[in-house]
Amino acid sequence: MVSGKGTQPANAECRLQQLGIELTPPPTPFGAYVEAVKTGNLLFLSGMLPVIGHEPKFVGRLGKELDASAGREAVRIAALNVLSAARQKLGSLDKVTHVVRLCVYLATHGDFFDQPKVADAASELFRDVFGEDKTSVRMVLGVQAFLLVCPWRLKSSWKSGLI
Amino acid sequence: MVSGKGTQPANAECRLQQLGIELTPPPTPFGAYVEAVKTGNLLFLSGMLPVIGHEPKFVGRLGKELDASAGREAVRIAALNVLSAARQKLGSLDKVTHVVRLCVYLATHGDFFDQPKVADAASELFRDVFGEDKTSVRMVLGVQAFLLVCPWRLKSSWKSGLI
Amino acid sequence: MVSGKGTQPANAECRLQQLGIELTPPPTPFGAYVEAVKTGNLLFLSGMLPVIGHEPKFVGRLGKELDASAGREAVRIAALNVLSAARQKLGSLDKVTHVVRLCVYLATHGDFFDQPKVADAASELFRDVFGEDKTSVRMVLGVQAFLLVCPWRLKSSWKSGLI
Repeated sequence: MVSGKGTQPANAECRLQQLGIELTPPPTPFGAYVEAVKTGNLLFLSGMLPVIGHEPKFVGRLGKELDASAGREAVRIAALNVLSAARQKLGSLDKVTHVVRLCVYLATHGDFFDQPKVADAASELFRDVFGEDKTSVRMVLGVQAFLLVCPWRLKSSWKSGLI
Repeated sequence: MVSGKGTQPANAECRLQQLGIELTPPPTPFGAYVEAVKTGNLLFLSGMLPVIGHEPKFVGRLGKELDASAGREAVRIAALNVLSAARQKLGSLDKVTHVVRLCVYLATHGDFFDQPKVADAASELFRDVFGEDKTSVRMVLGVQAFLLVCPWRLKSSWKSGLI
Repeated sequence: MVSGKGTQPANAECRLQQLGIELTPPPTPFGAYVEAVKTGNLLFLSGMLPVIGHEPKFVGRLGKELDASAGREAVRIAALNVLSAARQKLGSLDKVTHVVRLCVYLATHGDFFDQPKVADAASELFRDVFGEDKTSVRMVLGVQAFLLVCPWRLKSSWKSGLI
């Protein structure tokens, strides 16, 4: 017995469309690695940068060249690349049953302390796309690196049908 | 055949009590994430800080505001939060069959090189609580971040009964 | 029916020999942790440093004491330690069916931006040993730490025989 459409939660691809988000192709690797590996029902994704193609959209460090607001935009672009890489590997984001773990690494200078707020730009995007019940654990670090990096893992498996 | 109590290794909850440790509730998330996600028999935990509630117990960087000894105390508090979050998710720490991976990220300034000794404060706590045969792999990093972060993963499954 | 040796891809141990690589024993832990934990068909490895035994082969930061070329040599030594620790745990590198995830943490100073090229020294080694079809996802960070760290995970399971 398939429940009526009204009671069925919107799926990720549908939500993405409702949010007016169109994903660009994920960036190709910057070195001798791949963007996604699936093992069992876990999907591991490479660190993603705030680039479109290989063109950086934000360069700099929080607390120096970038403020929290620019940081949030940069994190959102990296997070969109995560979605794009996951879709490319899985065929559809609807196959994601849970977002397991999100790490956000933020190039930080000096005494910038708003990393959680900046990282929320990724968490909020994933919540909006996958739903609150699929929210991940999270780790946020301020690092020395030159750009934002946003690796991510999905628990990926076929959604069981509604019967 | 249940082996006698004398030959049964003390379990984690029991050891915790023997060590005189009383866990405070884990801190609620600082953003749009959750503290723990279980997938298969793996438990993933968010990065934990040296806070009680949301109140920081240590602020600063190793090699600047904090020395190794303060760092060890801070790591221990973060590690206690890890135990607390794991217990909250699993119901009991006795369900942990192995500590798989421990990452310790230490806010570091300048030429501080005692990160392994500081990180040992977490490793030693977990060894004392879970036993030496459940020791994890570890990664320790000196980072730019403003506080200590200690994420952790457990291989979590029901302990099979002694028969 | 076992296919002829000519059509069988060279295995990891064989390739290692062809490359003239002789692994030294992995470094013993620098603290209260272990070098490898296997859970299910995943192998988790501790962060590895560019040391032989406990003797550091490279000390310093990229962009200060070390240039990209020295960084690549250092990463390669850490990556060889990864191989050695994996072999010690599994008995043979031929049991590795996929390299899932590689993280490369590079102690970085100032405006050094060649982290991907430096990290490729590990990715290229693993590609040469395990083959291109087993390439991992990757995350590269410039950190504050005092030495290079290279943790790694393998999807490890017995290779099914050719029948």
